[in-house]
Amino acid sequence: MPELRKDPISGRWVIISIERGKRPSDFPRRISTSRGGFCAFCSGNEHTTPPEIFAIRPEGSAPNSPGWSLRVVQNKFPALSSAGDLNKTAEGIFDKMNGVGTHEIIIESPEHDSTLSTMPLKNIEDALKVFDLRIAELKKDPRFKYVLIFKNEGEDAGASLDHTHSQLIALPVIPHLVQEEIENARQYHTYKERCIFCDIIHQELAYKIRRTSENEEYMALAPFAARSPFETFILPKRHESKFLHNGNPALLAEILQKTLKQIDVVLGSPSYNMIIHTSPYNNEINDYYHWHIEIKPKLTKIAGFEWGSGFYINPTPPEEAAQFMRDAEID
Amino acid sequence: MPELRKDPISGRWVIISIERGKRPSDFPRRISTSRGGFCAFCSGNEHTTPPEIFAIRPEGSAPNSPGWSLRVVQNKFPALSSAGDLNKTAEGIFDKMNGVGTHEIIIESPEHDSTLSTMPLKNIEDALKVFDLRIAELKKDPRFKYVLIFKNEGEDAGASLDHTHSQLIALPVIPHLVQEEIENARQYHTYKERCIFCDIIHQELAYKIRRTSENEEYMALAPFAARSPFETFILPKRHESKFLHNGNPALLAEILQKTLKQIDVVLGSPSYNMIIHTSPYNNEINDYYHWHIEIKPKLTKIAGFEWGSGFYINPTPPEEAAQFMRDAEID
Repeated sequence: MPELRKDPISGRWVIISIERGKRPSDFPRRISTSRGGFCAFCSGNEHTTPPEIFAIRPEGSAPNSPGWSLRVVQNKFPALSSAGDLNKTAEGIFDKMNGVGTHEIIIESPEHDSTLSTMPLKNIEDALKVFDLRIAELKKDPRFKYVLIFKNEGEDAGASLDHTHSQLIALPVIPHLVQEEIENARQYHTYKERCIFCDIIHQELAYKIRRTSENEEYMALAPFAARSPFETFILPKRHESKFLHNGNPALLAEILQKTLKQIDVVLGSPSYNMIIHTSPYNNEINDYYHWHIEIKPKLTKIAGFEWGSGFYINPTPPEEAAQFMRDAEID
Repeated sequence: MPELRKDPISGRWVIISIERGKRPSDFPRRISTSRGGFCAFCSGNEHTTPPEIFAIRPEGSAPNSPGWSLRVVQNKFPALSSAGDLNKTAEGIFDKMNGVGTHEIIIESPEHDSTLSTMPLKNIEDALKVFDLRIAELKKDPRFKYVLIFKNEGEDAGASLDHTHSQLIALPVIPHLVQEEIENARQYHTYKERCIFCDIIHQELAYKIRRTSENEEYMALAPFAARSPFETFILPKRHESKFLHNGNPALLAEILQKTLKQIDVVLGSPSYNMIIHTSPYNNEINDYYHWHIEIKPKLTKIAGFEWGSGFYINPTPPEEAAQFMRDAEID
């Protein structure tokens, strides 16, 4: 059973996974580049993953058989354990609880070389709907307070498999960074009676200097204080605190793929991380927090300064990045 | 003039360095491994660095000539600008100020292949004293609120030069992570009337399960909620809020080198980041914050989950890491 531990200094929670406990010799001395060969996420290899939790497949076809266009499976090496209770306890002056949660994999395409930039829009639309479905389903488990959905694309971004996939982790605590965003957004709302994200969107609608694209429902933009080059957020233009709530998944798929195509063209298909930030289960519908997708191409290194300060050094002004993105010639 | 920008959502400040403004084609697609050749930090090449701010060198020897054992120079490519005022302004709903600060390099040894693990203890002791001196000197500049000293050792940890060196960045704001630590420590002190760091040290003195070494004045330990494998903190055992204040630099040099030797033996000389956290200029002596050194071997990747949550996945329990460290056979 892994443990969640709260650092009393920073207030941050950490997962200590004892089962996965690595020994010193387990760590690579060089970045591994061994890839390719057998792929558990490809069509025909369904039996090599844990059994599917959900799939989009032709009516009547058997679970864990080919023919699917999207699969959700448990992570074979989950970061958290899905069984057991939280058992919150003290260890001396420290606080801890069991590392209860769930860790799922969403395989958006059976094609090995497909990515969100290249797959049919229908697959992305389906994936977004499935994210929403899984969030709703996991809400029924009272142990969970938050679901984080993210994607690591490419080895530099932390992907251990080539075949594109997203990950979902349900957590028994609200993550520190999400809580911090929510607290700041709430304080802003208390002071201004407006949502800070809505204010940012309105400013971009007026000045358009950091906007990278837009459709009827969504806007993509470079944040004013982007932590790294070409960091891009996608947000609903209308206030929505809960992921996809009342939204149009086809339009979201469209702007997401367009943004990733722009990044591919401008930066030569870099590795990237993508994260969905939405309101926690205990307060999904509210006036102050605004769900969004964060996309961060992996271009710079996190070193001592960032690690020690929470300050980031971004060598590309977001306005210039946005200009490059807008100018990208995508098909 | 670079800019500091505050993200209104997270409260985080970011340096936007316009002069260093990278273009898309500037980013490496693969990690560069081209190293070696000419080294500006080696003895004999003093004229290729910016002029020295401070040096330990034989009496009567000319500045910027060979013979030194330690040099402090401006970073040739500083992240912040040392001239100008802050000029705090708004940009629409956003807040910004000029990126005023200083960015210095401390070269602890003239030997190209020397590291903190291998250099004479006297060099480390000198470096620690010089850190203290530079912090005191920069306090005279009223624009600066905080000085962060850190080291990136090895390419994976973000070092761009092989020759070991530390970096010092003086900032016009207190970094987010430091402020957060201070706030949490202050809250703890308000509640308990004790310093949280002192409580951690007392617990380790009693149980010793996460302690990795100790001398008369300092303790090294694996934090309870270590963010990554073999993360190690070094702290004064007596309460001290200000770096090295009343401390013994020879004893600090000793435990620092011992800790790094343990890491080298256990993990095969990995890349690492080292950071000094001390109290800010406006409140250097206080009852609730406790200065410390954080050492983080670069063994795991920061990926989407960490990036999106502030949660870290640490595959090695700190108690096991501490045991490995204690068992390391160092000379």
